[in-house]
Amino acid sequence: MLLARVEGNVTATRKHPSLDGWRLLICQPLDKAGAAEGTPQVAIDAHGAAMHQKVVISSDGAAARKSVGNNKSPVRWMVIGIVDEP
Amino acid sequence: MLLARVEGNVTATRKHPSLDGWRLLICQPLDKAGAAEGTPQVAIDAHGAAMHQKVVISSDGAAARKSVGNNKSPVRWMVIGIVDEP
Amino acid sequence: MLLARVEGNVTATRKHPSLDGWRLLICQPLDKAGAAEGTPQVAIDAHGAAMHQKVVISSDGAAARKSVGNNKSPVRWMVIGIVDEP
Amino acid sequence: MLLARVEGNVTATRKHPSLDGWRLLICQPLDKAGAAEGTPQVAIDAHGAAMHQKVVISSDGAAARKSVGNNKSPVRWMVIGIVDEP
Amino acid sequence: MLLARVEGNVTATRKHPSLDGWRLLICQPLDKAGAAEGTPQVAIDAHGAAMHQKVVISSDGAAARKSVGNNKSPVRWMVIGIVDEP
Repeated sequence: MLLARVEGNVTATRKHPSLDGWRLLICQPLDKAGAAEGTPQVAIDAHGAAMHQKVVISSDGAAARKSVGNNKSPVRWMVIGIVDEP
Repeated sequence: MLLARVEGNVTATRKHPSLDGWRLLICQPLDKAGAAEGTPQVAIDAHGAAMHQKVVISSDGAAARKSVGNNKSPVRWMVIGIVDEP
Repeated sequence: MLLARVEGNVTATRKHPSLDGWRLLICQPLDKAGAAEGTPQVAIDAHGAAMHQKVVISSDGAAARKSVGNNKSPVRWMVIGIVDEP
Repeated sequence: MLLARVEGNVTATRKHPSLDGWRLLICQPLDKAGAAEGTPQVAIDAHGAAMHQKVVISSDGAAARKSVGNNKSPVRWMVIGIVDEP
Repeated sequence: MLLARVEGNVTATRKHPSLDGWRLLICQPLDKAGAAEGTPQVAIDAHGAAMHQKVVISSDGAAARKSVGNNKSPVRWMVIGIVDEP
């Protein structure tokens, strides 16, 4: 699981049908000082993360498929928590 | 899942039979500013992505095997969406 | 599995319910000289690792799901050992 | 899946028995310009790839285990195609 | 699978019980010239690899769990071969 910051979202009219209705967020992994590090991941989100919010994301495909309710879905990364910030 | 740009394609006469008839695209992962970052992935594509188009790709082997209809296929990465561009 | 140092923890009020009650540690992977290398992973911990302690972490989702007792959990990385230090 | 160039091979007298009789190729991932990028992977090969040839490799363990015919094998990366070159 | 050099070992009194009795080696991935590249992996070893020896390591969790004989183990990386050296 990675600590990441929401940096945007992706709109795709043509996509795998299992992704219909899901937000696809561009999540930038962060180093321990909060700076960007590594390639952004595109993740689905059911928690309502806002732009620039810090989140925890996970690459677990099995759990993501259960979230979208489609066991043939190619979905993998998902937002699994919104980090509390002061 | 990664945001990527299609940068070419691979032709391979000798290949795993499950890949027959599939386009193999060279997909360059992008950072949040749209610049190339990290090693390109070779992905199958059923959405008809064009050269230089932005796509979302996923590493999910289970879904990719279902797409090619062969549960012994070594396929993993696939294009799962074409990003809308203005 | 990676050698890592605990560099902090994440608090997330909104999160996947399977993570309730689990510590989420920010674990910085280390190179062979003990210097930080690569992106930190967020890992669950049942061993009571302290701040700045060296740990071994694993990305195995199947084992992590068994640890949290929820086979739909998106959890992946977990602390699997605390490194002995002189 | 990665585009890679064969850069050598590994000989290991002591190895997991499922690897007996398989070539173990050192495959250097390539960027879109064909330059080396990232850490080489050791892959099994059933296609007869030659030194310096370009190949496509996949990390799929399930397919690799079926290729070696041993469902306890730790094998993962395999050559899945030989790239046509002019 | 990665070509790596054994650079040390980890001692952990507190660890997942499935790791009891297993050596945990710090394995530094190598580039094609034999130089260190990337983050070291901690791997179990049943082949008796010595300090500074070159090995092949694999991330396959299913095979590693069979090796330790515990299907709940979080173990992933293991030494799967010792490279012959002149």
